[in-house]
Amino acid sequence: MSKVGVIMGSKSDLPVMQDAIDILKGFDIEIEVDIVSAHRTPEKLFDYSKNAHTRGIKVIIAGAGGAAHLPGMVASLSPLPVIGVPVKSSNSIDGWDSILSILQMPGGVPVATVALNGAKNAGILAAQILGSSDQCILDKIMVYKEGLKAKVYDSAKDLK
Amino acid sequence: MSKVGVIMGSKSDLPVMQDAIDILKGFDIEIEVDIVSAHRTPEKLFDYSKNAHTRGIKVIIAGAGGAAHLPGMVASLSPLPVIGVPVKSSNSIDGWDSILSILQMPGGVPVATVALNGAKNAGILAAQILGSSDQCILDKIMVYKEGLKAKVYDSAKDLK
Amino acid sequence: MSKVGVIMGSKSDLPVMQDAIDILKGFDIEIEVDIVSAHRTPEKLFDYSKNAHTRGIKVIIAGAGGAAHLPGMVASLSPLPVIGVPVKSSNSIDGWDSILSILQMPGGVPVATVALNGAKNAGILAAQILGSSDQCILDKIMVYKEGLKAKVYDSAKDLK
Amino acid sequence: MSKVGVIMGSKSDLPVMQDAIDILKGFDIEIEVDIVSAHRTPEKLFDYSKNAHTRGIKVIIAGAGGAAHLPGMVASLSPLPVIGVPVKSSNSIDGWDSILSILQMPGGVPVATVALNGAKNAGILAAQILGSSDQCILDKIMVYKEGLKAKVYDSAKDLK
Amino acid sequence: MSKVGVIMGSKSDLPVMQDAIDILKGFDIEIEVDIVSAHRTPEKLFDYSKNAHTRGIKVIIAGAGGAAHLPGMVASLSPLPVIGVPVKSSNSIDGWDSILSILQMPGGVPVATVALNGAKNAGILAAQILGSSDQCILDKIMVYKEGLKAKVYDSAKDLK
Amino acid sequence: MSKVGVIMGSKSDLPVMQDAIDILKGFDIEIEVDIVSAHRTPEKLFDYSKNAHTRGIKVIIAGAGGAAHLPGMVASLSPLPVIGVPVKSSNSIDGWDSILSILQMPGGVPVATVALNGAKNAGILAAQILGSSDQCILDKIMVYKEGLKAKVYDSAKDLK
Amino acid sequence: MSKVGVIMGSKSDLPVMQDAIDILKGFDIEIEVDIVSAHRTPEKLFDYSKNAHTRGIKVIIAGAGGAAHLPGMVASLSPLPVIGVPVKSSNSIDGWDSILSILQMPGGVPVATVALNGAKNAGILAAQILGSSDQCILDKIMVYKEGLKAKVYDSAKDLK
Amino acid sequence: MSKVGVIMGSKSDLPVMQDAIDILKGFDIEIEVDIVSAHRTPEKLFDYSKNAHTRGIKVIIAGAGGAAHLPGMVASLSPLPVIGVPVKSSNSIDGWDSILSILQMPGGVPVATVALNGAKNAGILAAQILGSSDQCILDKIMVYKEGLKAKVYDSAKDLK
Repeated sequence: MSKVGVIMGSKSDLPVMQDAIDILKGFDIEIEVDIVSAHRTPEKLFDYSKNAHTRGIKVIIAGAGGAAHLPGMVASLSPLPVIGVPVKSSNSIDGWDSILSILQMPGGVPVATVALNGAKNAGILAAQILGSSDQCILDKIMVYKEGLKAKVYDSAKDLK
Repeated sequence: MSKVGVIMGSKSDLPVMQDAIDILKGFDIEIEVDIVSAHRTPEKLFDYSKNAHTRGIKVIIAGAGGAAHLPGMVASLSPLPVIGVPVKSSNSIDGWDSILSILQMPGGVPVATVALNGAKNAGILAAQILGSSDQCILDKIMVYKEGLKAKVYDSAKDLK
Repeated sequence: MSKVGVIMGSKSDLPVMQDAIDILKGFDIEIEVDIVSAHRTPEKLFDYSKNAHTRGIKVIIAGAGGAAHLPGMVASLSPLPVIGVPVKSSNSIDGWDSILSILQMPGGVPVATVALNGAKNAGILAAQILGSSDQCILDKIMVYKEGLKAKVYDSAKDLK
Repeated sequence: MSKVGVIMGSKSDLPVMQDAIDILKGFDIEIEVDIVSAHRTPEKLFDYSKNAHTRGIKVIIAGAGGAAHLPGMVASLSPLPVIGVPVKSSNSIDGWDSILSILQMPGGVPVATVALNGAKNAGILAAQILGSSDQCILDKIMVYKEGLKAKVYDSAKDLK
Repeated sequence: MSKVGVIMGSKSDLPVMQDAIDILKGFDIEIEVDIVSAHRTPEKLFDYSKNAHTRGIKVIIAGAGGAAHLPGMVASLSPLPVIGVPVKSSNSIDGWDSILSILQMPGGVPVATVALNGAKNAGILAAQILGSSDQCILDKIMVYKEGLKAKVYDSAKDLK
Repeated sequence: MSKVGVIMGSKSDLPVMQDAIDILKGFDIEIEVDIVSAHRTPEKLFDYSKNAHTRGIKVIIAGAGGAAHLPGMVASLSPLPVIGVPVKSSNSIDGWDSILSILQMPGGVPVATVALNGAKNAGILAAQILGSSDQCILDKIMVYKEGLKAKVYDSAKDLK
Repeated sequence: MSKVGVIMGSKSDLPVMQDAIDILKGFDIEIEVDIVSAHRTPEKLFDYSKNAHTRGIKVIIAGAGGAAHLPGMVASLSPLPVIGVPVKSSNSIDGWDSILSILQMPGGVPVATVALNGAKNAGILAAQILGSSDQCILDKIMVYKEGLKAKVYDSAKDLK
Repeated sequence: MSKVGVIMGSKSDLPVMQDAIDILKGFDIEIEVDIVSAHRTPEKLFDYSKNAHTRGIKVIIAGAGGAAHLPGMVASLSPLPVIGVPVKSSNSIDGWDSILSILQMPGGVPVATVALNGAKNAGILAAQILGSSDQCILDKIMVYKEGLKAKVYDSAKDLK
């Protein structure tokens, strides 16, 4: 079965990363959540990244703040698509460091970066990646998008 | 057969976007290249985005500069994963406008953003997305990564 | 007959956009308020933008935050002058993303951008646009400016 | 006949501001071009701004670089809509000073700001403002937009 | 007698500008405080700036926020040295707009810019300017600097 | 006789700082030019700053780039008004480091900061400081400003 | 015995700098804490910097905010390695001024800069510098790093 | 004998990093130069970082550009002091990404960051680190600083 790995550099990133977990659960996609710190547990980073694809993980979502090296190092070590979530952590300069450290990867090693604190979108993107070869998930995404639309129409009605 | 759609907002983005085309050709992945301007051809944007997934496109790469609305609008209209390439075009403020216009999508509508002018990485990421359900492409990515590694070892040898 | 269209990407933009509504009501200019999301209701965006000028709308004010595509996409689809209000929404990076996504439109498709959260000025600018061909509104603007002046003189008097 | 005033802070802004002049001439809109420096000719600034609307000017386009006070000061003194063009002049810090000095006007005194060096869009916006009460100009804008579209279709055809 | 003019764009700038007033009073330098808005009271701006030097004002301190045109316009109209205080007002983007609008004056028209919200330093600088031709004030500045020094030595002693 | 001290952190700053020298010479103000590096010649910095006012210097202009400590350290050590010129040197990040290092002085120790590379304005400001107690220099400044005005009128005439 | 000098520009920097003190005490490294202001006590700055190495100080940690000249001036005057801590003080612009004033030192005079408010890392870095010639301290650092690792493993266990 | 390891992420960083090599050779400090890419050769990164201190390396200098993970990952894996050189590489956004990715390390894992392209200062800092326990190197640094001073005095003499 398709699985998404959701990792974060620190437990303090969980309130942000929970949005990715929730959205994936909402799509009934199996996930695996862990804390992996590029700077404090580099060996775990290596093990995780080298092996994720061998146990059925299809996409990895990695969130981190400040000099956020986790997504990029996972992307360095894994052949899987890696989605990076820049976290506006307490040690971040308004999020700019998190964004640039994740986004500006060198040629050869991409990280699919989403908005600052955009874990929800990371979850949707992971679903879309699985959905690109799984009609059932693709259908769920189309239903989800209809739901977004309906909410806007409702709030427009409320306004009037 | 899996296909990647590569679109750009203007012909002037082609020198940057060519890197995505080249890398995907190098992986023997079928691509379809087009110019779609969110601001000048909004109807084409709609048609393209609404229909891409119905004719076998699995991933869309969209490059644009300045107030770069193309990737986000495609993501609004298509259920497919959309990779955004911020282009440092002549009308861009050092690329910051391109990056922020593509990256900072609202919750519900992700764009997988790569580095400024990072079309090469957009191509690799598209391959990884296809590769997450296609062992043959995944294998090619692993070979590609070995090639990157070898080049660094060679240049390290040259240095000594 | 409705003359200024005021739209916003999300109901959460209303507290900011209310300033435009209030100032236009103060000038006795008829307005039409709606929620139109470029990313969640792209079809409504198309309908709204394509038709606004056909039902008597003369100026459109569009407010949005983050990767704010609403004003630019309306400008893409409508021949009317479009005023963009960058909103410092909760998902914005200090407003920079909203500003650059609205301001940095490509040649051919202008958006008249006002200050961050500057909905009041958007309302005044809409009145000035109408006033450029309507002496009655122009006169109201001159009165309004005299009012601004008087308040400064009063506060200067208070200071002494 | 409707007229647009095009002013700039220095003769060195002319290469940028020429785009506004050209586009307005292309729309057969009568223009008046002048150099008015907020910092070096404040009296001329006053005379110009106080009187422009009395001699038939309907919209003012003002371009300036660095600490660009011209558009805002004209807006302070004139009841007309003022379009500000931030110019990336030689004394500008990558254009940021020009943009922020023009965009961030206080409540009560709007400047319709366009992109950095976006004089072409300033011209189009001026035409749209006139067009909001002049069907003939509105029609020309619709034709102009069709022309933009056609060019994209042509370049897309060239690509294939 | 030597006098310093302290002006600000809005009464809301007073809490910041009070520091300049206090420090100048501490130096027994006669001051004149007023509210002058470049954008809302341009005629007062003209009168004030044109005449300040004729009634004994030797230095002008001008504070403003956002697109802060007050210091630069005073400098345009007065031969006196003008000290600009960028105010981090509620409509400012973290103060960057205030700083750049005041600092980046074109060649020919300087504004002596101090730190964001640095009204205290504006007061000291005004005193130094008077002090450059008034030994009594220069002496007070030297005493003031000794006071600063003493406070650091005291707090260093406290630390131990 | 009144004198202005012009110092810079490195000989490479001379092309920028020459503008201050030229303008002061144009006003017939006696100047003294030297190279004083805060980081490489701290003892000279001390001697210069401690003694400048004792030998007739009335104003100090200090230019530096990168982490530009020279103006602030002179201001720390001298009771005189210090004008800081942020230089966009080769080791500067687009000038932001030079600007912030000079502008953001703590309360108690002002530096009168001018625009990036704004040595010309530093010279004029120094003249204005001297002029605030010297009618002859004040008159020259008024003549200078008339000259600026005349040049704009001439270029406006050329335009037509 | 090896000693680390910890200095700061103001007592208000102590809450941030305490982290350096605590971590060094945790490593049983002798420290000396003082307040030295580059701008208010330049003579103390000179004495401190010229003499620190003569009384057994091996590394200096200097923290400061705003136009933070303390670390760079100490580096100018002392042959010792100087670690600079940019402090996000109340007068700082989101910390950018502190960072750039400390980081962007000219060639010849380095400051080892750590993250904004990164006093803890300054302490660890000082220990590492001592540890590079002191096996006992090096061992403690390795133990410390194991502790960091263990905490991540514990929080990962908690998560599951 | 004391040794400094100088590594860089790519051969293209050599022109910048050569300054570190040259300065260390000038101090007669033994160095070891290599190319280690965090993203392309993660295994080499691990081996290098884990073992450097076991073969006599006392300080590591690591230079990288863009999303520069090399210095931080080395710091994660080695107990030695790591000096990071942000390189303004071709794929960097004016160097901001390189700086923030290196500087903003989380608590526990410091990188001693120097100025953008500041490899020369990285070399001097490495020498200072060795010099803090090696009087001979400390003496060389004092001589070096005298040399810097002399050059400034010479250029000041030339100026006059």
